[in-house]
Amino acid sequence: MSPGRLHALIDGVFAIAITLLVLDLPRPAGSDQLARDLLHNWPSYAAYAVSFATVGIVWIEHTGMMSAVRSVNRRFIERTLVLLFFVSVVPWPTALAADYARDGGAQARTAALLYAATLMLMGVAVTLGWRYLVSHDELVAEPVRTVLPAGARRSLLGTLAYVPALLLALVSPAASFGLAALIAVYFACSRTAVPGLMRDHAADSTG
Amino acid sequence: MSPGRLHALIDGVFAIAITLLVLDLPRPAGSDQLARDLLHNWPSYAAYAVSFATVGIVWIEHTGMMSAVRSVNRRFIERTLVLLFFVSVVPWPTALAADYARDGGAQARTAALLYAATLMLMGVAVTLGWRYLVSHDELVAEPVRTVLPAGARRSLLGTLAYVPALLLALVSPAASFGLAALIAVYFACSRTAVPGLMRDHAADSTG
Amino acid sequence: MSPGRLHALIDGVFAIAITLLVLDLPRPAGSDQLARDLLHNWPSYAAYAVSFATVGIVWIEHTGMMSAVRSVNRRFIERTLVLLFFVSVVPWPTALAADYARDGGAQARTAALLYAATLMLMGVAVTLGWRYLVSHDELVAEPVRTVLPAGARRSLLGTLAYVPALLLALVSPAASFGLAALIAVYFACSRTAVPGLMRDHAADSTG
Amino acid sequence: MSPGRLHALIDGVFAIAITLLVLDLPRPAGSDQLARDLLHNWPSYAAYAVSFATVGIVWIEHTGMMSAVRSVNRRFIERTLVLLFFVSVVPWPTALAADYARDGGAQARTAALLYAATLMLMGVAVTLGWRYLVSHDELVAEPVRTVLPAGARRSLLGTLAYVPALLLALVSPAASFGLAALIAVYFACSRTAVPGLMRDHAADSTG
Repeated sequence: MSPGRLHALIDGVFAIAITLLVLDLPRPAGSDQLARDLLHNWPSYAAYAVSFATVGIVWIEHTGMMSAVRSVNRRFIERTLVLLFFVSVVPWPTALAADYARDGGAQARTAALLYAATLMLMGVAVTLGWRYLVSHDELVAEPVRTVLPAGARRSLLGTLAYVPALLLALVSPAASFGLAALIAVYFACSRTAVPGLMRDHAADSTG
Repeated sequence: MSPGRLHALIDGVFAIAITLLVLDLPRPAGSDQLARDLLHNWPSYAAYAVSFATVGIVWIEHTGMMSAVRSVNRRFIERTLVLLFFVSVVPWPTALAADYARDGGAQARTAALLYAATLMLMGVAVTLGWRYLVSHDELVAEPVRTVLPAGARRSLLGTLAYVPALLLALVSPAASFGLAALIAVYFACSRTAVPGLMRDHAADSTG
Repeated sequence: MSPGRLHALIDGVFAIAITLLVLDLPRPAGSDQLARDLLHNWPSYAAYAVSFATVGIVWIEHTGMMSAVRSVNRRFIERTLVLLFFVSVVPWPTALAADYARDGGAQARTAALLYAATLMLMGVAVTLGWRYLVSHDELVAEPVRTVLPAGARRSLLGTLAYVPALLLALVSPAASFGLAALIAVYFACSRTAVPGLMRDHAADSTG
Repeated sequence: MSPGRLHALIDGVFAIAITLLVLDLPRPAGSDQLARDLLHNWPSYAAYAVSFATVGIVWIEHTGMMSAVRSVNRRFIERTLVLLFFVSVVPWPTALAADYARDGGAQARTAALLYAATLMLMGVAVTLGWRYLVSHDELVAEPVRTVLPAGARRSLLGTLAYVPALLLALVSPAASFGLAALIAVYFACSRTAVPGLMRDHAADSTG
């Protein structure tokens, strides 16, 4: 099956997940100190920004991977649905982590743990996608096949980066959250040969 | 009319329906035992997962069917809108079934009945789509026409599997729910010649 | 500009508008007579069904029109955004009309008036799209240009059908609502030469 | 990388953002003067209309820009995600500005400031996209490269127009809001050579 329809489903779920985050921004009703009340909810904006950036970066990385895929089978689609499951769930731990951030105690640690775990599970799902392609490279355009292991490693690195975020959540929710933000910044700024090689290939085959 | 626009509408509705499910995950406010309160709501996560998986599998099956369709007419689009109606409605019985699951009495049975009925109606709508194609095979690429009856049978089987789920709902909501989960797992794991044959055809006509 | 991006925006807004309707279905919390409480809210399901069907039919009609459009300009995109505005607003009067339906008095009439007016304004926006194409037929594929006036008339007929629905809303909200349902059924079942001619043309140019 | 997937993500986020606005329209429950209560909330409709129009116009302008882009790189996608961030956030200040509009005092000024700032930040993000293309014109189809500086200027003009809207928000929220509406009307009605030149180029390369 050609991957066009799967692209559309993926783009739809990512677009909706990042846009639904807005529903959890604070809307204090009848405030008589609106500026203060809004600033007081700063964890909501931080959580919104980190979740938006992380899901956006996962989309970039996953789109890079998918640009190499020439056909998909049922098993690959099902693995992709597992990723979409964790992407679609992101607004939920984001809202919880923001709500309990200022609490600073046990409940904030629970929420931070759930948040870091959800981001990590997105990484796990992307990594499983890469590994499936490594072992089923008939789905992938020939010139890109040699790049697959490098892509799988990069994705595994991004996933493992959330292990310290999970551990930190047990001690300091704020530090766990800060690490999640750093991971997003790192991947946003990183230069990697993987998409470059894929882009070159795409240019070869379309131009 | 070529089916491209219809694909886009279908993918949009499926993507939104599975992503809107997140709005009904429990968000206990001001809890002082967040982990316990979250675990207490386990039926919500189970319902979320089963609904996500079922809608995802319906998308896979329906996309397989649509991959054979070369043109669409008004009557076929209207039948597809009936499917989209039941897909878009899924978050509603999902939330109700989760809310009343622990009640275990008459209200839980009502909610479980509504849930199983909605999943079954998705199956009915997909089956009607297959049957319309069987009787209007001018809409379908020639080499795939012989596969249509097998696709219609598979879809009918998936639909009839919800009859015991409906009956079970009258006795044990949990058992009905478990059966719905099993149907999703069965279809996720099943191997069928139908999409294979369609995929082969697609490969023939594009490669 | 080629119309591909505009198609994507249109399909996205229609898909979201019909799927957001689900958020307004009744979710009685802690009911001890769930079946009765759900049935009691029958106007919500009727409103959901009529709005879904009407928006779906507007999508079919508008997609038929757009299938003739070969390029779009800024003025045409702006007219399309006016249509998308009224499509995106539909869940709002739908929820109000359902909420006040059983009231039967002045508030129900206000809500029914708002509902009929919104559906009519969708029709007005579609009709303005047709009329713009009639007077700017350089945007339309040559063989379909002669069909444009027939399309504009059909769209105007659909719009004027809501005038009695508006008047009825002032007397009997239920009757107004029933007429809106009938209009949807009529357009769903109607046979028209317009999309047929367009489909033939599409077949000519792609097959 | 070819820009097709990025188009899909952009169109998805814009479509969802403008459709989610409907969730904040007033739904007075159990009103016994529905017409009066609905009219009383007129700032909500004004805010809905201005936000819808502004996001719609940003979509038109941005789609015009993207029609010139032949390939995208990681840095460009990231800049586009910044735009999508501000687009997805629009329903939030829209709801706040509408809620506090009638207050007329300090809270209304805070909300109006947030609203004007969000619209301005959309403009900033679009302008940064243009400037990135000016300095990386290898991403752009050759014949359109000369038009890029004009596009960047037009986008900068649209952004700077929100500076007086920001200042006005500190004095009169209503005036600030009126200016935002005027900016939308101006851009809706304006004739610019930029999209025209791009359209001509698109016609050249496809027709």
